[in-house]
Amino acid sequence: MNKRVRDHAEVIVDHSTDVQPGDDVVIRAGGGTEPLVTALHEKLGERNANPLVVSRSGRASRAFSLAADPEALEIPEHTLALMEAADVVIGVRGSANQHESADVPPDRQVALEKRRKPVQEAVLDTRWVGTQFPHPGTAQKAEMSTPAYEAFVYDAVTMDWAAQSAFQRQLVEILDPAEAVRIVSGETTDIRLSVDGTVTVNDDARNNLPGGEVFTAPVPDSAEGTVLFDEPVITRGREVTGARLTFTDGKVAAFEAERNEDALAATLEADAGASRLGELGIGMNREIDRFTYNMLFDEKMGDTVHLALGRAYEKNVPEDSPVERNESSIHLDMIVDMSEDSRIEVDGEVVQRNGTFRFEDGFEG
Amino acid sequence: MNKRVRDHAEVIVDHSTDVQPGDDVVIRAGGGTEPLVTALHEKLGERNANPLVVSRSGRASRAFSLAADPEALEIPEHTLALMEAADVVIGVRGSANQHESADVPPDRQVALEKRRKPVQEAVLDTRWVGTQFPHPGTAQKAEMSTPAYEAFVYDAVTMDWAAQSAFQRQLVEILDPAEAVRIVSGETTDIRLSVDGTVTVNDDARNNLPGGEVFTAPVPDSAEGTVLFDEPVITRGREVTGARLTFTDGKVAAFEAERNEDALAATLEADAGASRLGELGIGMNREIDRFTYNMLFDEKMGDTVHLALGRAYEKNVPEDSPVERNESSIHLDMIVDMSEDSRIEVDGEVVQRNGTFRFEDGFEG
Repeated sequence: MNKRVRDHAEVIVDHSTDVQPGDDVVIRAGGGTEPLVTALHEKLGERNANPLVVSRSGRASRAFSLAADPEALEIPEHTLALMEAADVVIGVRGSANQHESADVPPDRQVALEKRRKPVQEAVLDTRWVGTQFPHPGTAQKAEMSTPAYEAFVYDAVTMDWAAQSAFQRQLVEILDPAEAVRIVSGETTDIRLSVDGTVTVNDDARNNLPGGEVFTAPVPDSAEGTVLFDEPVITRGREVTGARLTFTDGKVAAFEAERNEDALAATLEADAGASRLGELGIGMNREIDRFTYNMLFDEKMGDTVHLALGRAYEKNVPEDSPVERNESSIHLDMIVDMSEDSRIEVDGEVVQRNGTFRFEDGFEG
Repeated sequence: MNKRVRDHAEVIVDHSTDVQPGDDVVIRAGGGTEPLVTALHEKLGERNANPLVVSRSGRASRAFSLAADPEALEIPEHTLALMEAADVVIGVRGSANQHESADVPPDRQVALEKRRKPVQEAVLDTRWVGTQFPHPGTAQKAEMSTPAYEAFVYDAVTMDWAAQSAFQRQLVEILDPAEAVRIVSGETTDIRLSVDGTVTVNDDARNNLPGGEVFTAPVPDSAEGTVLFDEPVITRGREVTGARLTFTDGKVAAFEAERNEDALAATLEADAGASRLGELGIGMNREIDRFTYNMLFDEKMGDTVHLALGRAYEKNVPEDSPVERNESSIHLDMIVDMSEDSRIEVDGEVVQRNGTFRFEDGFEG
């Protein structure tokens, strides 16, 4: 077995999900991920934990989505029972074709996703992690050779997480007690958010592997302003480019996109929470040095900020929070490039300019 | 999508498991079975049932089996919860390599199987079916080209099940009220069993696809005599050939095998029920015209009888039966060729001679 695959499995089992003897573990595996799934079985065996592999086939999902009547379907109680009984859920992406659902009508996809919301909530109640297997199809999407992409993935997932965690903690300490955040980039993005009362989380690769962001939830009715998302967003199997959203009282008041605006429209109409923000994230992982058309990596990249439409995480808005948690069946991350002519202000003070934080060398306040 | 794959999916969903709207369906899929898994998703979508795919990877299982401590493992509660909540379980075999667990010590495999017994019982409480996808690896094992093997599989699974059911019913009507069965083949096999009080089942492709046998359970302490199993048995990833078992008071009193006798020994030692018979089956499917090293097909072949060590099915020995049901974590089918110099006697009368039943043309009483 390839040593890098084994190391990846070890980080998942020991660092990200801290698997204990007797844990019931679900591996949700995309196609072509067998080497990592096998390495995970070895590690889980060593820990005397119980693995079960749920396979996620894009082709099968597409066939089901096109054939079923979303209104007639019931909640999948068996899947819900599985996830409710699970201690750990490990998601392994590895699709040969991210666009496998490109010809499923967006409104149908929204309806089908809604039905799965209780399952998704049960997964979030476990010690869950999402990670990537370097499938040639994902390498192709990243416009990289498979060996180069493998190196990119393995370098990112096996980095020194203790050091990265300490680096990120500096931003957590600024953002967590803060009230107001403003994000400005060029002439196209200027948005103000309140994070008053929400919890800032240090993503040091527990739920996402790689990790490498600091994130919180905006107060649901606080967003004011306009954002141009510089990088394409893949939603419902289609690539939305040049998305520009204007928020008033926290809600999307206007939107446009250069390509696949209808997929964006369907996402916004999924439910009441889909047109409000559920996350503000700040990418801080400098090992991730390029966009690869893969949100798991892209949102962690240094010099970026991302905002997500839809569901806020309980970690950011716990049950006892004074803030209302934005609920939705969707969670769509969208990225703003902050490397040039950009700044993040927290409570009126510049915390990052052109990608450099105020706690780093080279910062120009 | 290939029409034969679609037809196969339709037989599974409509005939074998009679899927209804709202049913929660688990597909346990071996590697390389995506075409059938996709076709099943289409059919299940049309029925508005909920599919979940559990993937069974031989390589992953092997890695887990070698790494885990069987004594330290607990019951996989999440898998149990899944199967208990499922209405239908569809098993799709398609392994590239049936010997993937050949280097896992047999006693370790027995211990790991024991742990899964409650899961297996929960599966048997659903409307379950096991079927085969014609993977090139399975074709290789059958010593056939993949296209020829595909034709063999698709012809067998899409046959006229109503006609086959009527043919088999003639034997059910003889065997179900009977008390004593004697099986004689050449100089090597002569065994007497009681089937007094057990229920004979007509396998017309509900739980097995293809179906094509009539089966019941012997009374657990009734087997007397010796059987030479003519065809190889694959257990724990290894091929046991020339197995010869002698029964006294229903229990294996002596055994030998030409190859892999230790795998047979481990199976017999799995638990108390493993050294008694749980099934007597009579193959009646003439579409299956050759051995393919695959019990799902081999045991249905005309001119054969099979006896299974271990677990008896509840269908054969229901809860209110006067007969004790043989319980075990194992169920190992072993085949006797009845085509020549052979006979089946039921209550002293010859019911089959040299493969021909008394209700068929050409029978020589």
